[in-house]
Parts: sequence; C-alpha cells; structure tokens
Amino acid sequence: MVLKLYGSPVSTCTRRVAIVLHEKQVPFELHPIDFAKGEHKSPEFLTHQPFGQVPYIDDDGFILYESRAICHYIATKYAGQGTPLIPAGLHENALFQQAASVEMMNFNEHAEKAVFENIFKVWHGGKSDKEVFDKHIEKLSARLDVYDSILSKQKYVAGNEITLADLYHIPYGAMLPTAGSNIIETKPNVNRWFNEICSRPSWQAVKDGIKSTA
Amino acid sequence: MVLKLYGSPVSTCTRRVAIVLHEKQVPFELHPIDFAKGEHKSPEFLTHQPFGQVPYIDDDGFILYESRAICHYIATKYAGQGTPLIPAGLHENALFQQAASVEMMNFNEHAEKAVFENIFKVWHGGKSDKEVFDKHIEKLSARLDVYDSILSKQKYVAGNEITLADLYHIPYGAMLPTAGSNIIETKPNVNRWFNEICSRPSWQAVKDGIKSTA
Repeated sequence: MVLKLYGSPVSTCTRRVAIVLHEKQVPFELHPIDFAKGEHKSPEFLTHQPFGQVPYIDDDGFILYESRAICHYIATKYAGQGTPLIPAGLHENALFQQAASVEMMNFNEHAEKAVFENIFKVWHGGKSDKEVFDKHIEKLSARLDVYDSILSKQKYVAGNEITLADLYHIPYGAMLPTAGSNIIETKPNVNRWFNEICSRPSWQAVKDGIKSTA
Repeated sequence: MVLKLYGSPVSTCTRRVAIVLHEKQVPFELHPIDFAKGEHKSPEFLTHQPFGQVPYIDDDGFILYESRAICHYIATKYAGQGTPLIPAGLHENALFQQAASVEMMNFNEHAEKAVFENIFKVWHGGKSDKEVFDKHIEKLSARLDVYDSILSKQKYVAGNEITLADLYHIPYGAMLPTAGSNIIETKPNVNRWFNEICSRPSWQAVKDGIKSTA
C-alpha cells in the first residue's frame, strides 16, 4: 500500500518529510489536513498524532510522527535507493547525529521563532514584534558564524557527503528571506551550501506546495 | 585510551552523557571546564566545540559534541554491553527516534527554559521573570498531559523497553522541583515513569555531581 503523508502542502515540517520522500524516490499520497477547520485537533487526528501537530505518516499501517523521525525512518527503510542520507560508519554516523542535533538546538531554535514572529503569527491575525524577531536573528547570526567556519572546511554540515542533517535546514531556512532576513546571504560558506541544497530537485518539487507522487 | 568527558560536573547536558556512560559501563575521566573562568569560550576549547557549549568527548582522538549525539554514539559503540538503549528493529527504532524528537521539541523546549528562568538566570546575577516561567510550565503541562496518556499504555516513552529517549529527560526534569514546579508529580503516569528512571543507579551516581570512573 502506498505511503500516506498527513499534513499541509505548505507546512514547513510536512515539506521536510516530502523532500526526503523525493530524495529516496518513494511514491506517496498527500492527505491534506485543514488547519482552518482545526482538523489537526480532531479526535480522529489525535489518535494518530496525540500532540496535534503535523505531519504523520501511515506506511501500510505503521503510524509515525515527528518530521525528523519520519525522515530517518524513510532513509533507513530505503537505504538502498535514491540518495544515501545516513552514513553507516560509527564515526561518520556520530558526526551526522552531531549535525542533526546542532540543527535542532542551534539553527531551528532561532530560525523557527523568527519565521513564526514575522510570518505565521501574522497569518493567524497577530502582530509581529520587531524586538523578538531581531533577537532571534541576532542569535541565529552568531550560530551561523560557526556554521560558516565549519562549512569553510567541508562541503556539508556532517562532512563531505550530504545527509539528512543538511536537508532538515531547508524549510525554515528558505522562509527567512520572506520573513525579512538576508542572514544566510551574509555568510559566504553558509550561502554557498544553502543555495546548493535548495537547488536540488527534491526541494524544487515541494517548495511551492507538496503534490502526491503516487 | 580512556574516554575523556569535557564538561561541568553539575551541567545538565554533561550529566546526560554521564548517565549513559554509567548505563553502558564505560569508564571515563571527567575533565572539568570552569565556566566562571570562561574556559568554554577559550580558543583551545573552541577548536573542539566551535559553539562554545559543553560537553564534548575525546574518545581516543575522536572528538564529538552535542550531548544527545554523544549518548547515541556511546550506545551504538557499546551496543553489546550494559543496558541496551537503541532498538535495532526498523519500526522499534523509528518509535525511538520519534520519542527522542518529542523530548527535544515538546519537553526540553519548555523544561529547559523554565529551569533557566528560575535557576540558571539567577545564578548568573539575573532576575527571574514569573510570567516567563509560568508560561513555560503551562505549555509543558499541556505536553505532559499527552505524555501521561502515552505512558498509561506503555512503560517507557518509546514502548515497553527503556531507551536513550527516556534518559534524555532526566537532567532537566529532575531540576523542575528546585525551579519551583511540581508539574511532573501532578500527572500520575508521568510521575510513575519519571520516578522509575530517576531511581536508576546511573542517575544516582551523577545527580550530585559527576566523578571520573577510570
């Protein structure tokens, strides 16, 4: 049975999963969840994703949520097809885990909140707070200075091969310009890396909205 | 050569790693980093941990940072000794990855900030903001209601066997009462689970400060 992806065609976390489905050449059906109707908080949805967040997948009856865990599962299950995204060697895998953890704790921590402040909050009828946005961009800038140094010595965040850890950055990173920040452009090695990963067919296929491929 | 752990004997993230070293029966030397002297921002430290955070390890010349990545590396390298902490099966491993991601995004996100507000900020001469603390405890409470439902059906966060994902919660969870919140106690299944993982010899060995075991 074809893999079912439950989420929103334009949600950042749903697109994170869709990128990996494209990289691993796994056909999937998108089942859109209507946030406006509160479908992600419906009793039926909560039986599959108890935190009321998107996305989750149904892979022939196996239910899984948390976008990065889903990406890891897909890259593990389909290790032999598409782009290799999880290094197998002990040290190489450890450096991948390190980079994936840095993405969550040092990048996403501030990129998500900056994007929320200037985009999602406004979509939901709120008013963005310039001070909050600037604080997150300032902190992100300091973290990206470290990324810039790392990426001056290696091609990707976990070494010289692309991994899931690179792809995890795309959905929020790509929204920073729309949120009003050119912070990525200002760091030459980060800019080179980010442009490269964003030019991949996987992101090009989902950046304007996810479509089923099965 | 014995594994070297560079961090603080009382830092939450350093203790996260030390718990796993105890669970996996891996002897280690603690090399204390003096925050007061700014040792974590020294040029030498930054060559090993470019973000200036603790801990990092030196395992016979292999340098690794990010506490959860270090724990994953130790549990992988020493899969055959001590407590098994990473499930091998495709689905079991995916549910472990899901629980580990929930810990970072739903638990740590608010537990860390609540503990920072009422403990670390004050240690550093700041003044805690009750409104900020209460907001994080309120959000954490909603997430722990979901944990309580999950833990009413299974023994641990990833299923019926303990994994790294359980242990990741200990350092910040154990500081919540000191920070002034009894939120864990108020959720019966969370309370049962948290008391059980905190009673393990691994946490008892490091809760009052990490000591070298080699």
